[in-house]
Amino acid sequence: MTQSPSPRPAFASWLSTGNSITQQFMAIGGRPDVVSLAGGLPASEIYPVEAIAAAQERALTRWGTQILEYGAIEGLPALRAAIAERFSAATGRRFGPENVLLTTGAMQGLDLVGKTLVDPGELILSQFPTYLGALDAWRPRMPRYERLDWSLEAPGQDAALRQAKFVYAVPNYSNPTGVLVPQDQRAALLDKVEAAGTWLLEDDPYLPLQFDGPAGPSLLAHHAQRHPNGAYAGPVIYLGTLSKSLAPGLRVGWVVAEASLIATLALAKQSTDIASSLLTQAIALEMIESNFEAQHIPKIVATYRERRDALCAAATTHLSDWFEWEVPPGGMFVWMRAKDEAIDTDALYTHALAENVAFVPSSVFDPSGALKSAMRVNFTRSPPEVLVEGVLRLERAVRRLLAERPGRAA
Amino acid sequence: MTQSPSPRPAFASWLSTGNSITQQFMAIGGRPDVVSLAGGLPASEIYPVEAIAAAQERALTRWGTQILEYGAIEGLPALRAAIAERFSAATGRRFGPENVLLTTGAMQGLDLVGKTLVDPGELILSQFPTYLGALDAWRPRMPRYERLDWSLEAPGQDAALRQAKFVYAVPNYSNPTGVLVPQDQRAALLDKVEAAGTWLLEDDPYLPLQFDGPAGPSLLAHHAQRHPNGAYAGPVIYLGTLSKSLAPGLRVGWVVAEASLIATLALAKQSTDIASSLLTQAIALEMIESNFEAQHIPKIVATYRERRDALCAAATTHLSDWFEWEVPPGGMFVWMRAKDEAIDTDALYTHALAENVAFVPSSVFDPSGALKSAMRVNFTRSPPEVLVEGVLRLERAVRRLLAERPGRAA
Repeated sequence: MTQSPSPRPAFASWLSTGNSITQQFMAIGGRPDVVSLAGGLPASEIYPVEAIAAAQERALTRWGTQILEYGAIEGLPALRAAIAERFSAATGRRFGPENVLLTTGAMQGLDLVGKTLVDPGELILSQFPTYLGALDAWRPRMPRYERLDWSLEAPGQDAALRQAKFVYAVPNYSNPTGVLVPQDQRAALLDKVEAAGTWLLEDDPYLPLQFDGPAGPSLLAHHAQRHPNGAYAGPVIYLGTLSKSLAPGLRVGWVVAEASLIATLALAKQSTDIASSLLTQAIALEMIESNFEAQHIPKIVATYRERRDALCAAATTHLSDWFEWEVPPGGMFVWMRAKDEAIDTDALYTHALAENVAFVPSSVFDPSGALKSAMRVNFTRSPPEVLVEGVLRLERAVRRLLAERPGRAA
Repeated sequence: MTQSPSPRPAFASWLSTGNSITQQFMAIGGRPDVVSLAGGLPASEIYPVEAIAAAQERALTRWGTQILEYGAIEGLPALRAAIAERFSAATGRRFGPENVLLTTGAMQGLDLVGKTLVDPGELILSQFPTYLGALDAWRPRMPRYERLDWSLEAPGQDAALRQAKFVYAVPNYSNPTGVLVPQDQRAALLDKVEAAGTWLLEDDPYLPLQFDGPAGPSLLAHHAQRHPNGAYAGPVIYLGTLSKSLAPGLRVGWVVAEASLIATLALAKQSTDIASSLLTQAIALEMIESNFEAQHIPKIVATYRERRDALCAAATTHLSDWFEWEVPPGGMFVWMRAKDEAIDTDALYTHALAENVAFVPSSVFDPSGALKSAMRVNFTRSPPEVLVEGVLRLERAVRRLLAERPGRAA
C-alpha cells in the first residue's frame, strides 16, 4: 500500500502568528563556537548540584510515596505554606496556603492567567518592550495589546485600564530593559488599578538578582500596606520562581493571589497537566527550609554583578560609539539602544551570527515587531572573559553592518 | 483606607462550562472514613520508592548541571531516544527522537493537541463516554463534539470524520468503560481516518495494565504495519505515560507523532511552561534503562488483577440485581450499567457519600451530562478487603435510593 494521505486539518489559527525564536536561541546556546549573549539563562556552573542531591534524598525519605502521587493540583501543601510565609514576612500582612498555587516555573503562571482571564480579542495592558515568553504564553488566547506607560501620562491609559482584563508589569529589572521601576510609579499604578477595578499581574522572576541595593516593595507589598488586614482580596496576581535563585530545571514557580482566583487558576491547571511533580516541589521545600536558598543567593549576585560590570566596561570601550544603555541594577540583561538610525538590530543579528555571537534583537519584544533599534544583551550565562570576547565580536558585527551601508553610515 | 475595589473583569468564557469534579474526588480521596472507588489512582503502596531514590542519585551523578537547566523544550534527548526505541520495537518501523515530545504526564499531551489543532467551534470526534480529563483539557478551546461509533456504522460518521480536527480514541481498557477495542475495529477506524485525512489521537495510558493476555497492536502499530518505511508521516498522535507503570508523581508522559507535528506541539509546549523538569525525566530514563520498569509491571498487574477479581466477585453477590458489567481485561475501572431505570447514578452518588463510599457517576463522562444510568468503579487504589467493604456500602446506597422512590422501584 502506498502512502497518499489526504491533507490533514490545519493547525489552530494562533499558530499562524507563532514564533520559533526561543527555540532558535536555545539551539544557538548549544553551539560551542558561538558566544551567546542571547538567552536569559543562569550561570549553570553555580547550580547547587550537591545540595540538590542531598535535598532529593531527604525529600524522598521524608515524604515517601506521598510525593509520587498525582498532586494536589495546587501543589505540595507544605511548600505552599512556606511560600505563603515568605510573602507574609515580605509584605507585613497574612498570606495563607490558600493564596498560593505552585506552577511549572513562573511561565506556567503566565499561561494559566491568560487561560483564566482572556477571551479572543480582549485587552491586555502591558509594558513594552516586554517579555517574549509572556507574548508566547498568551498567543493561544489571541488577545490585543495596548502599551502600559509607567508614567501613566500617555493618552488613553485610564480607558485602557478600565477595558483591560489585566495589566502586565515587571517592576524589578524587567526583561528586556533591566529597568527597576521607581516606588512612586508603583504606587501610582496601583492607585489606577484599584480605581479601574482590573487585575494587576506582577511578574517578578528577577527579584533575587539585586546587585546595587534592595529592589524595594513589590506591587503586592504596596497593596498589602494599604490593606493589611483580613483575607487577601487585592488585584495583584504575583508570579515568582526558584529558577533564578536555585535552578530552572526544578521547574518550581508560584502564583500568589486572592484565594478564589487561586481556586480558578487551579481548575485551569488541572485541565493543563493535572498537577506538577511533587518530587521537585519537595526538593524545593528542603532547599528553602534548610535556608540553603537564602545562603546561595549572595553567591549568585556576586557572580552576576562581576559579569555585568565586565560586559558594561567592554561595551563602553567597544560599542558606545553606536549604542547607549543604563547599567542595570539587577536582573540578567543590558538593553542597548542604537544611537545611529543606520543600525537595524534585525540586520545586525545576521552579521552577529556570522561573527559567532548572538543577542536578541528588539523586534521580538513587541507584538508588532516594529522596534528595530535596540538589542538585549545577557550577561549571566558566561564568565567575564567570554562576555568581553562577545562584545569584541559585536563590534565587528556592527562594523560589517555599517560597511554594507556606506550611504547611511555615520 | 478601606477596601472597596470595583468588580474585577470576568473570567474567560470557557470557565462558565468548567467543572470541579476532579478536585472533589481528590478531596474525597483524602478522607480516611470514605472508601473511594472514584479516582483513577494507582496503588500507592507499590510505588517504587527505593528504586526511585537510587535512580535520582544516579541521574544527578550522571548528568550534573545538565538536568538542572531549562529543558530542551522537547525533553531530555536520551529519554526521547529511549521512548523512540521502545516504539520502534513495538511497531516494527523506525521512530526517532524527532518523533517524541516529552510532556508533564499524558494529560499535557491532551492539552497541547487541543491547543495546536482546535479553534473554537471546531469538531472533535470522540468515543463517549470518554475520559473526563480530555474534556477538561479541551474545554479552553471550546470545541464541539460528535460521538465516534467504533462500529463505524452510525449515520454521519464519514462526514464527521472529514470535518473533525481529530478523532479521539482510547483503544486499550478505556476510561471509563474498560473496553479493549477489537483489532478489526482498530484497522477499520484507521482505514476511515486515512481516507478522511484527519488526525487520530490515540490515548494509551493503561497499556501496562494487561490482566488477561496481550492488548494487541496499537493504532500506531497498525499504521506502522501499513507504512513500514521512511520517516513516520502517519495520522496517529500517540500518548503514553509512566504514571501507571512507575508513579504519577514523576509526571513523565510522551507524544509520538510525525516530526513536523512534534515540532509544532513543542512550540505550544514552550508557550505553556517552557519545558518540563529534566530532573524527573532523567530519573525516568534510569528506571527504563535499568529495566526496572519492565520488571515492576508484572507486580502491578498481579496486584490489580487480584483487586479486579475481588471487586467483581463482591459486586456479583451484592450489586448484580441492579447493575451489569463486563469484567475488564485490563486498566483500572469496572463500568457498571444500571439494569433498572429507577437508578439515576447522580442521585445514587448522594446516597453513596452518606454511606461513605464514592464512585464516579456516568454523567461526567459526557459533555451533555445526559448519561445517568451507569457508574465508574475503580479497583486499583484499595486492597481487596476495602473494595469489598466499598461494594457493601454501595449496596446500602442503592437500597436507600430505591427506598426513597417507592413509586418507581422494582
